[in-house]
Amino acid sequence: MPMIRVEMFAGRTVEQKRALVKALTEAFVATAGGTPASVQIILTDIEKSAWATAGVFAADKPPG
Amino acid sequence: MPMIRVEMFAGRTVEQKRALVKALTEAFVATAGGTPASVQIILTDIEKSAWATAGVFAADKPPG
Amino acid sequence: MPMIRVEMFAGRTVEQKRALVKALTEAFVATAGGTPASVQIILTDIEKSAWATAGVFAADKPPG
Amino acid sequence: MPMIRVEMFAGRTVEQKRALVKALTEAFVATAGGTPASVQIILTDIEKSAWATAGVFAADKPPG
Amino acid sequence: MPMIRVEMFAGRTVEQKRALVKALTEAFVATAGGTPASVQIILTDIEKSAWATAGVFAADKPPG
Amino acid sequence: MPMIRVEMFAGRTVEQKRALVKALTEAFVATAGGTPASVQIILTDIEKSAWATAGVFAADKPPG
Repeated sequence: MPMIRVEMFAGRTVEQKRALVKALTEAFVATAGGTPASVQIILTDIEKSAWATAGVFAADKPPG
Repeated sequence: MPMIRVEMFAGRTVEQKRALVKALTEAFVATAGGTPASVQIILTDIEKSAWATAGVFAADKPPG
Repeated sequence: MPMIRVEMFAGRTVEQKRALVKALTEAFVATAGGTPASVQIILTDIEKSAWATAGVFAADKPPG
Repeated sequence: MPMIRVEMFAGRTVEQKRALVKALTEAFVATAGGTPASVQIILTDIEKSAWATAGVFAADKPPG
Repeated sequence: MPMIRVEMFAGRTVEQKRALVKALTEAFVATAGGTPASVQIILTDIEKSAWATAGVFAADKPPG
Repeated sequence: MPMIRVEMFAGRTVEQKRALVKALTEAFVATAGGTPASVQIILTDIEKSAWATAGVFAADKPPG
């Protein structure tokens, strides 16, 4: 019944996302218990034009 | 002032969504009180490629 | 697999909350389909000292 | 480390959004302390067809 | 109808929180438009024992 | 900058939670990239009296 939500910048491949949800599920079960079937995960891609730190969108920051 | 959020798989029709928000609002008022006007609802469609259980996306599971 | 979240002012009784989750579940299934067992609901009580409109906490507003 | 999330109707311009995250960051630091660099903001546009009050989507309400 | 959520470390005074929601509401209206009455804010205090970066809770980090 | 949120039943020990955030952070970095320092996690304990499936709170279900 644990619900895990991940917000991250858009751009990961489907293969990365598949590996991510598998690894997060294993990490949860190994440390907090429960069964893999009980673990739900929702991934949300966030555009760099929607995520700001220090009052500036990531899309507007100089590279580096 | 209650805020209801619904995350569900994409695919419902507009008519289903209209019926859903009407029914949820009525269900809230009938049991928890308040006025319909105070009830806010946000619906979020989640793609099957973004919702995993048991470490596997719904989009990757065999049908059935 | 739908996930319903309800944020509301603290103060409902346990009986009201039981009726609420039952009614919301029925409302979802009747309009959007799926099975009752698939519907998850998390209720979150919000204190009036944590919910503001117009820049003022509900706890600080005059009654009425 | 504060995390601010804003859900609002779609339609603001990029310039408005840039001004918004700058102003929210300044508002936070001026009143609650911390540094601008610690303030994160995620903006989420919500379509009027996904946000309901009184059981009716904003998209379905008569203008005015 | 904008909904602003703020998650921050517990510890701010009531006075700071009152100033915070007032300032955030003004910041929203000044840059994104709308009326103060339409702006809702929910504040959530997060304990340092519940917020981790780099895999370590804030509560477990050395001061400084 | 990834933000991971975990909602789970209350009851894990501090040691389990420490192991959990460490393991989730490692799982993220190993599969999706980025640095451990960029990964933020917020854990939220949910009471069984606040989480329902099939219209019934976990607290009200018969054991087993």
